[in-house]
Amino acid sequence: MEKVVLAFSGGLDTSFCVKYLKHEKGLDIYSAIANTGGFSDEELKNIEAGAYNLGVTKHTTLDVTDVYYRNCIRYMIYGNILKNNTYPLSVSSERIFQAYAIVDYARKIGAKYIAHGSTGAGNDQIRFDLTFQIIAPEIEIITPIRDLTLSREAEIDYLKKHGVEKDWKKMEYSINKGLWGTSVGGKETLTSNKSLPQEAYPSQPTNEEPTELTIEFNKGEIASVNGETFATPVDAIRKIEAIGASYAIGRDTHVGDTIIGIKGRVGFEAAAPMLIIKAHHLLEKHTLTKWQMYWKEQLSNWYGMLLHEAQYVEPVMRDIEKFLDNSQENVTGKVILKLYPYRFELVGIESDKDLMNSGFGDYGEVNKGWSGDDVKGFTTILGNQLKIFNKVNEGSLDIK
Amino acid sequence: MEKVVLAFSGGLDTSFCVKYLKHEKGLDIYSAIANTGGFSDEELKNIEAGAYNLGVTKHTTLDVTDVYYRNCIRYMIYGNILKNNTYPLSVSSERIFQAYAIVDYARKIGAKYIAHGSTGAGNDQIRFDLTFQIIAPEIEIITPIRDLTLSREAEIDYLKKHGVEKDWKKMEYSINKGLWGTSVGGKETLTSNKSLPQEAYPSQPTNEEPTELTIEFNKGEIASVNGETFATPVDAIRKIEAIGASYAIGRDTHVGDTIIGIKGRVGFEAAAPMLIIKAHHLLEKHTLTKWQMYWKEQLSNWYGMLLHEAQYVEPVMRDIEKFLDNSQENVTGKVILKLYPYRFELVGIESDKDLMNSGFGDYGEVNKGWSGDDVKGFTTILGNQLKIFNKVNEGSLDIK
Amino acid sequence: MEKVVLAFSGGLDTSFCVKYLKHEKGLDIYSAIANTGGFSDEELKNIEAGAYNLGVTKHTTLDVTDVYYRNCIRYMIYGNILKNNTYPLSVSSERIFQAYAIVDYARKIGAKYIAHGSTGAGNDQIRFDLTFQIIAPEIEIITPIRDLTLSREAEIDYLKKHGVEKDWKKMEYSINKGLWGTSVGGKETLTSNKSLPQEAYPSQPTNEEPTELTIEFNKGEIASVNGETFATPVDAIRKIEAIGASYAIGRDTHVGDTIIGIKGRVGFEAAAPMLIIKAHHLLEKHTLTKWQMYWKEQLSNWYGMLLHEAQYVEPVMRDIEKFLDNSQENVTGKVILKLYPYRFELVGIESDKDLMNSGFGDYGEVNKGWSGDDVKGFTTILGNQLKIFNKVNEGSLDIK
Amino acid sequence: MEKVVLAFSGGLDTSFCVKYLKHEKGLDIYSAIANTGGFSDEELKNIEAGAYNLGVTKHTTLDVTDVYYRNCIRYMIYGNILKNNTYPLSVSSERIFQAYAIVDYARKIGAKYIAHGSTGAGNDQIRFDLTFQIIAPEIEIITPIRDLTLSREAEIDYLKKHGVEKDWKKMEYSINKGLWGTSVGGKETLTSNKSLPQEAYPSQPTNEEPTELTIEFNKGEIASVNGETFATPVDAIRKIEAIGASYAIGRDTHVGDTIIGIKGRVGFEAAAPMLIIKAHHLLEKHTLTKWQMYWKEQLSNWYGMLLHEAQYVEPVMRDIEKFLDNSQENVTGKVILKLYPYRFELVGIESDKDLMNSGFGDYGEVNKGWSGDDVKGFTTILGNQLKIFNKVNEGSLDIK
Repeated sequence: MEKVVLAFSGGLDTSFCVKYLKHEKGLDIYSAIANTGGFSDEELKNIEAGAYNLGVTKHTTLDVTDVYYRNCIRYMIYGNILKNNTYPLSVSSERIFQAYAIVDYARKIGAKYIAHGSTGAGNDQIRFDLTFQIIAPEIEIITPIRDLTLSREAEIDYLKKHGVEKDWKKMEYSINKGLWGTSVGGKETLTSNKSLPQEAYPSQPTNEEPTELTIEFNKGEIASVNGETFATPVDAIRKIEAIGASYAIGRDTHVGDTIIGIKGRVGFEAAAPMLIIKAHHLLEKHTLTKWQMYWKEQLSNWYGMLLHEAQYVEPVMRDIEKFLDNSQENVTGKVILKLYPYRFELVGIESDKDLMNSGFGDYGEVNKGWSGDDVKGFTTILGNQLKIFNKVNEGSLDIK
Repeated sequence: MEKVVLAFSGGLDTSFCVKYLKHEKGLDIYSAIANTGGFSDEELKNIEAGAYNLGVTKHTTLDVTDVYYRNCIRYMIYGNILKNNTYPLSVSSERIFQAYAIVDYARKIGAKYIAHGSTGAGNDQIRFDLTFQIIAPEIEIITPIRDLTLSREAEIDYLKKHGVEKDWKKMEYSINKGLWGTSVGGKETLTSNKSLPQEAYPSQPTNEEPTELTIEFNKGEIASVNGETFATPVDAIRKIEAIGASYAIGRDTHVGDTIIGIKGRVGFEAAAPMLIIKAHHLLEKHTLTKWQMYWKEQLSNWYGMLLHEAQYVEPVMRDIEKFLDNSQENVTGKVILKLYPYRFELVGIESDKDLMNSGFGDYGEVNKGWSGDDVKGFTTILGNQLKIFNKVNEGSLDIK
Repeated sequence: MEKVVLAFSGGLDTSFCVKYLKHEKGLDIYSAIANTGGFSDEELKNIEAGAYNLGVTKHTTLDVTDVYYRNCIRYMIYGNILKNNTYPLSVSSERIFQAYAIVDYARKIGAKYIAHGSTGAGNDQIRFDLTFQIIAPEIEIITPIRDLTLSREAEIDYLKKHGVEKDWKKMEYSINKGLWGTSVGGKETLTSNKSLPQEAYPSQPTNEEPTELTIEFNKGEIASVNGETFATPVDAIRKIEAIGASYAIGRDTHVGDTIIGIKGRVGFEAAAPMLIIKAHHLLEKHTLTKWQMYWKEQLSNWYGMLLHEAQYVEPVMRDIEKFLDNSQENVTGKVILKLYPYRFELVGIESDKDLMNSGFGDYGEVNKGWSGDDVKGFTTILGNQLKIFNKVNEGSLDIK
Repeated sequence: MEKVVLAFSGGLDTSFCVKYLKHEKGLDIYSAIANTGGFSDEELKNIEAGAYNLGVTKHTTLDVTDVYYRNCIRYMIYGNILKNNTYPLSVSSERIFQAYAIVDYARKIGAKYIAHGSTGAGNDQIRFDLTFQIIAPEIEIITPIRDLTLSREAEIDYLKKHGVEKDWKKMEYSINKGLWGTSVGGKETLTSNKSLPQEAYPSQPTNEEPTELTIEFNKGEIASVNGETFATPVDAIRKIEAIGASYAIGRDTHVGDTIIGIKGRVGFEAAAPMLIIKAHHLLEKHTLTKWQMYWKEQLSNWYGMLLHEAQYVEPVMRDIEKFLDNSQENVTGKVILKLYPYRFELVGIESDKDLMNSGFGDYGEVNKGWSGDDVKGFTTILGNQLKIFNKVNEGSLDIK
């Protein structure tokens, strides 16, 4: 019997897949869940139990949190990546790392197939398929849900026929949780003119009193939170998430272009990503040069776009990472934030690498490093090309 | 006696200039203030009275609000321009239009000189000088404050000597108000680690109850506010500012690179710019294609940078404006916002031009315009280059 | 009987299509050829005769040369577009305009189908299909060659069976001629290490003596050639092509990425495009500002890429065209070139809009508009940020 | 007596400086020439003799060829850098490395001053001053020629007065030679409409017979030339230069924007740079992905611009270098060129990293990795956004 690794979440679609792959395709089923930091131990245990109940040969939990941080989240922080200036790619960025883990596992157990439960209407099918096809061309992909286009009722009936009785009630919202935020889709997000009600978000504010939060960065990576250091950056992110979520910080709606060309809309809550990215960005404003900021933004936007669009494996992504790595050399210092319910404020930074308070000159105040005459000379030369232009093309610079 | 046009604000520096230009330079002084929408009639009257008290030959108020909107604010809206993703260029964008108005006036009265009160440590000196030099090379520029580098005390003494007694108390914060926001500098903004206290901002929140705000755009320009239409877009902006300021929306601190290469920091409040830009941006997410969004952002960031850096007259700015103009063809519809004290939420949009709810296909739900097999084919071809790459450079796409 | 418009070239593939669509699909066949300037009247007559011989109901020649110039070539000149700095998109840029013409014709005669003879391995199938699908979603596309994947022999046999006997000898090279150049593919272009022999190119050098060529531009468009004016820019291009081809100018090999992700290689000869683009580019170096040059290049490269990749209909292309249009305001003047067998030299330009010889200052010689002290001031201020950077990050600017 | 290091070339200007610094400034003169590969041993000896004749305390030759290659030329090759698609930055790129060497030497001998002979009308003054000021703020800069603005005659008279009699005949052209090419300025380059006569170039063609040249690259660096390996890449460049110069390859005129805003024009001959860059570029077209090519070009153009404009020390340059370094991982293989008098042809490449002939699919021929149906699906999905766009904005995609 040929082995198939099934990316399993415990929901209706992937439960259907277990029975379908077994009974219709005659495969030996190895279910696996790749955890990117969004599932608790209890949730993982329930998923495992559910898998065995459905009759899988073996169920495995693959922890990809550290790999995901090291190869992706780190660069999203360096790049201050917010898709369309809004969305920290909370869920879309995880898929590739789940796919990598699934492939590793499939190879380890010698599976001929990989199956996943994606439909034909979203981005995830492409993220999974593209990664599988590129890095493991020898493995065949099976996507029963996409291929059969069954209704929920038909899936439930099929499961019943195979002895699975469960209350598969459709959730009002589809919720996806990971280390880098939680996406919330459904109902209002299917319209253009309504946003999610506050109660649709998993986290609810529990803190009324404003508080100060200090995030310390060392060469772009989080070094401490409120003075506390952590075993791994992942733990530091969790700490910031816990604090920020208690203020319901980081909620918004992302509207953007999917890989398949249609517009999509999704709600998200992402306290840690928003706090970290905005803090990191502020520290960079103080420590990087103008052109470093400029080119970092160009490359990071592109990085975010390709990441979102299933192209993490593109070699240019590795080239960009090298640029980003090097740019973080001096991004070291503390950032002070103030948190309020639903919002936060950037107070300021403290850093030995601060280019602002260097004793060299102060904006609009006193200038020690140059004279008024220097600025006059500067302005004279700076204007040369446009003076010539206006002389040659007389009157062309007038405004109306 | 040669005529000089003095850009006059009524403060210590420009008051000093009146006396200095008269007594030391023997010039015939025509003071002028170019209003970009930040001064009330009363304030303008006081400034005029002050000018005549100091002994100017003639004082004039030049209204540049409409010119400023038509030639600049409009494009900052089209381009969703926020410098460093933060600052709507509240004050820096006005200077050029003030300079243009001063030149027009100087030419009208046949002045040989233009004088302004800038110091040698900021951006404004360059914005003024560069514009003057380029569009009016025949006029000579005089900058007594920059050239003499006198202390406040010396200026006050000089004024006393010429019979001007006034309480020139130094304000704790230097405040600059215009149609596109108010900048607040001083004290905390001279540090890196403190932000302005709430009371430093001119507007204070007067509204506790959340409210809904609807901004309607027609080809990128504001067509109505909460259903009300206005004689000019400038009036619409004022209406939005009044509503937003009552919630103290749009406060933040900008940190960035000055034209002279040092880092500068300034607080600002800009309710209308933030509400308008974020609303406009959301409408674009629904009505523009992915690559329109991409290139608009590239060009707009550059536009904002050159505008900030005194290069508004660069011909490339006109080329960019043509791009932006054309991109607004379909940016028509209503945007719904919800305002809370200190913050706001984008609820959604309603538009005939919405590319999202076109009945073509819904993200993650049902797909009418294509099949699962189409997506498979798409993914297969999309992966071609990277499949070849991985075949040729085996193992190079692994992650660790 | 339903009508089909068949894009017909007279070759084996489209001849097969005539018989196939008639006998297997029972369609009423309207053949059409969209001429973008590459066919002589005689060639067009032969193609027409061939079509009627095969039994089409009606054959039509659609002349799209002017439409193609006005909507595309013009912008390729404004943008100095050379794909990968090499290829003037000689053939790839025509396809869209052929597709538009085919759709117009199909709608005029009420055809239900459009058929074309593309295979499944190239770019053209996508250029045609994408354009058809987007602008005429109501029309169905038929692609017998791609769908049946028959061998040449099988096609020839099928034609024989239907009474068509002809010597369908496979040409050693596949040649595609249009107003903007001729592509030559086959044999050597299928390798990576060989280039086409000189005799593979349709034009051969007939001129040994160097000659001077003067191209005059008016706002970016060709106004005259060697002093001679023309009824249309298309005629001017033909004139330049005739002169340049007599020197065998403009031959090269293009290597690049196809829309389907594989690398492709093709030879081309394109005397007029190379002469015009290089001349136009030189004139721009003299008449545009630095940032106009910079952004024109960014946008033009992108324009060329999307054009090549079948995305001419993308709305961002119209936005870019507006930018390019405006940038040509001052691109007026004469360019002098010198032609030799196989190569040419840019001699110089003469223009009232020349920013170089404005009497303002000469590079490296005398400076009238500024002093040495101005440059010192300029340099001092220009260095500010890096001086601060080096002070804060001591030693970080050392080189090894 | 305070020490000054004088950047000395042996010409009239720097000879004047020796006498002037000694007699008017009373300084102890250490002359130095930083050789970037353009001077022969004999030339260097003559310069040294001239320096001692003028009375310097000590003269030194600083060899910066390897430093220049490693820190700059290497990246210009990786980036295929041609300013305005024309100029390999033959001379402008050297200045920074000469400046670094001068500073090193000045520090070693404890000099308080650095002097150079630049005028106030060119780029070099800024390249030198900026680098000196940033990396050695403690050293004072003296520029007698710029400050005194003497005529040639006045300089010659002053030298005579101090006992220096020499035939300072003004060369018709000012020639600057370095490892990365030779610039030739004067007479025709001061006009817009004339180019240099062939005899103005130092190298003249000595070869009539076409020849083949093979350059092998290993991760972007030259590994061998016609099969011959070299001790250093600098030697390989010299070899290629010798071959190419014998065909007078690589002559052209560069027109561009100077740092001071005026347009400048200069002739150059640069056989090795043109052959190497075009060969390297071709190899990249075969071995890099589309987006690697795209971003390499963006960053490299910027790199070239900052390099040209004296900003080599900008930290973003180091970030870009890291990107470029990484992008060269697979740029390995042989490139075959064919040389003719005054021109060359790129024949092709041979590489294990070639993405073209991977046995995966051939452009326009056969496709092994996908089916016609895959392309149909691809095209369907690729067109989604524009189909929706055309549905929502009916008729907006029409052309006229």
